[in-house]
Amino acid sequence: MGEFMTETQQRPAGARPSTETLERRRPIATDRDGMPGPLDGPEAAVILERARMSVDPELRAAIESLPPSMRRVALYHFGWVHPDGTPAAGNAGKAIRPALVLTAAGALGGPRARAAAMAAAVAVELVHNFTLLHDDVMDQDTTRRHRATAWTVFGEADAILAGDALQALALRLLAQDPHPASTPAAARLADCVVELCAGQHADTALEKRGPGEVGLDEVLAMAEAKTGALLGCACALGALYAGAAEEDVAALDAFGREAGLAFQLIDDVIGIWGDPSRTGKPAGADLAARKKSLPVVAALTSGGPAAAELAALYELPYDKEDLQRTALAVERAGGRDWAQAQAADRMARAMQELARAVPDPEDAGGLLALAEFVTRRSN
Amino acid sequence: MGEFMTETQQRPAGARPSTETLERRRPIATDRDGMPGPLDGPEAAVILERARMSVDPELRAAIESLPPSMRRVALYHFGWVHPDGTPAAGNAGKAIRPALVLTAAGALGGPRARAAAMAAAVAVELVHNFTLLHDDVMDQDTTRRHRATAWTVFGEADAILAGDALQALALRLLAQDPHPASTPAAARLADCVVELCAGQHADTALEKRGPGEVGLDEVLAMAEAKTGALLGCACALGALYAGAAEEDVAALDAFGREAGLAFQLIDDVIGIWGDPSRTGKPAGADLAARKKSLPVVAALTSGGPAAAELAALYELPYDKEDLQRTALAVERAGGRDWAQAQAADRMARAMQELARAVPDPEDAGGLLALAEFVTRRSN
Repeated sequence: MGEFMTETQQRPAGARPSTETLERRRPIATDRDGMPGPLDGPEAAVILERARMSVDPELRAAIESLPPSMRRVALYHFGWVHPDGTPAAGNAGKAIRPALVLTAAGALGGPRARAAAMAAAVAVELVHNFTLLHDDVMDQDTTRRHRATAWTVFGEADAILAGDALQALALRLLAQDPHPASTPAAARLADCVVELCAGQHADTALEKRGPGEVGLDEVLAMAEAKTGALLGCACALGALYAGAAEEDVAALDAFGREAGLAFQLIDDVIGIWGDPSRTGKPAGADLAARKKSLPVVAALTSGGPAAAELAALYELPYDKEDLQRTALAVERAGGRDWAQAQAADRMARAMQELARAVPDPEDAGGLLALAEFVTRRSN
Repeated sequence: MGEFMTETQQRPAGARPSTETLERRRPIATDRDGMPGPLDGPEAAVILERARMSVDPELRAAIESLPPSMRRVALYHFGWVHPDGTPAAGNAGKAIRPALVLTAAGALGGPRARAAAMAAAVAVELVHNFTLLHDDVMDQDTTRRHRATAWTVFGEADAILAGDALQALALRLLAQDPHPASTPAAARLADCVVELCAGQHADTALEKRGPGEVGLDEVLAMAEAKTGALLGCACALGALYAGAAEEDVAALDAFGREAGLAFQLIDDVIGIWGDPSRTGKPAGADLAARKKSLPVVAALTSGGPAAAELAALYELPYDKEDLQRTALAVERAGGRDWAQAQAADRMARAMQELARAVPDPEDAGGLLALAEFVTRRSN
């Protein structure tokens, strides 16, 4: 699953201080490079840091409760220890999902609901990391958060077992949480796991098919299952813990899903046209890997001569000379414009869903800031 | 994890009709071959068949709720479809674990408790099969229940995802079950998953070590985690659904664990001295694989000249000529006697725990029959 920007890729906190009020913010903006815009400020960074600080002790306590064989794999995966077990500085990602749980709970139920939603925040982060451990095995990915993936260090079997145990820990935390929302939250999170698995399956299945055999609807559905579902679930769990009405829980789920899709669209644009010095990935890495990302499939299915050229290029093995030509074909076939328009559209829908459940802009501000943060990782 | 006898290995129903009363049954018996004894009758078969009949529709409905990509893998794994998706006769194993849940609930709470425990019975069976799917990938086992394992048919990634989804389904079923015991049952089942993972890790880790580097205590602990834990959890969940007191839940857990260890001990004896025409495995398969099964480790750690001879044989690659010599060394070093005495001891402890929680032999009869059934699969 896509991972949000890491420490080194992130703009330094406060580098672009924002004084805009929420009302003045547009749902999604693009700067002069066509990249997502300059409208966030320190707020998202503060929310994320606060979430990380409150979630980490609980998360770590849950992981310390594991038997040693799985504990060491999980501690390594979260960046808390080196392969030999000695303590590490820690780089467990941005805690977007726990921040969404806590911020959604606070938006709908105030500070008390936020504080009460801790088990749900930890459970969502455990599920996210269980899927990362397993996805890395399945995709044979060797790097995650700038470190060797767990399976390359401990072997595939131990990475699979650690993932299995993290899923169990997540659902145990909810089963042991006395909060009345913990049971519906567990059912919702378990449903989300099934959807995440379906998304991962669809992703690998789509990548095996030829460039002419993939539809735009199915790639969008895959991205929603693989990326949108857990962001939606995180927001919905926060709403459940705030005691929100069913339609508000559904609206928060839809908000997270749409924001997640907007994130994936922007992430895919960056995967082609992002600045390597900012993204930390080589230029055009997704094109080199012949990845059927959203802008690529939009271009492939657009039907013009640029689409045919792109399809022909994608049938060939990667050639460095072709990189610019491939990127240009995606652009000329409308893939870039489509992805950016779609991202803006998804963010607009996310805002609508948010406004429906949380009409007061002051209450909605934190969720808005997080949604904007995740959709502009290149800036 | 060990799988109990399958259709083809099983003695035909009623082939040895038993008229013994429960009082006359000894905890564990051996027949003239030194194999576990002739004391069961049709009762266990009837209980298992009844459990299979009541659990299968619910189990199948849960699996049918999966997205198609994982549904087909799970349906195949349970024996309900062929690799191409066409219906198959079905051979989903003996349903020992769901039968333990339902029978324990009935023993402590009567027929109403038995009927109310259905979600727990299905959840336990889903967890068992999730671990089988993952273990087969990790161990690269190619056959399960006389069919090709799921990963050999659908690939490792899809088998991992199907296992992940089955774990989620199990915990979702409990989260959606309105019974007051469903939440503590979910916490207990999630804890058990962590223990099963630790057991699987220990098993593969022990197999990688030299014959002189494995202690008897750690092999027993591994077998308890890998085999005993889920049988214990199944019984404990039944007790929870019957509204039993905490000490009775603990006693039922201990009963299942001890019976599970007895099963593993007998299974390991059969793995060396069992009749291939009855076990369906080639003679001495465990010795050929240099498996550090319980009788082997007992022999290796016994300290005499036979132990030294066995260790020397285990250091060498397998040679068919040595098979009888190896089996004889295990026997002369006391491995066979130890395993059978341990199995009898474990079954005696299981009976004590059962009698503590369910003093009336009439009420305890079903659980007793199941425990005896699982510990004599060769007959």
